[in-house]
Amino acid sequence: MPKPGILDPQGRAVAGSLPHLGVDNVSAVRVGRRVELTVDAADAAAARATVERLAGEVFANPIIEAWAIEALPGEGVS
Amino acid sequence: MPKPGILDPQGRAVAGSLPHLGVDNVSAVRVGRRVELTVDAADAAAARATVERLAGEVFANPIIEAWAIEALPGEGVS
Repeated sequence: MPKPGILDPQGRAVAGSLPHLGVDNVSAVRVGRRVELTVDAADAAAARATVERLAGEVFANPIIEAWAIEALPGEGVS
Repeated sequence: MPKPGILDPQGRAVAGSLPHLGVDNVSAVRVGRRVELTVDAADAAAARATVERLAGEVFANPIIEAWAIEALPGEGVS
């Protein structure tokens, strides 16, 4: 997601269009990406290490984007 | 997120590039969007109704995309 305070032009555009759709109770919109990864690793800690490296070095621009990791239900997730 | 079975070219491209970055234990990547909304509503049910309408009719293409709603910590969220 864009970090707090970082301009989010896509979210601004969406927020500006909602009143034209009859939606007048949404005061802020922020748009980001969601990436789901299937990781083969010996354990949950090793899988998380892979995902943290990718999130911080590949998927996100650390200057302007924040990221979070969530384990989803799946084979062998613990 | 792209529905299961729907081709995800962005995810495919990312997955194909990871071995070149030395990451060989990620077998699948799917890329979608995350939208955070600040909603003014009388209660949580009304806020959820607004978000469900927007998710199903505005933000997602129901033919090829699935969506889920999550309540985030914030002022008055219950």
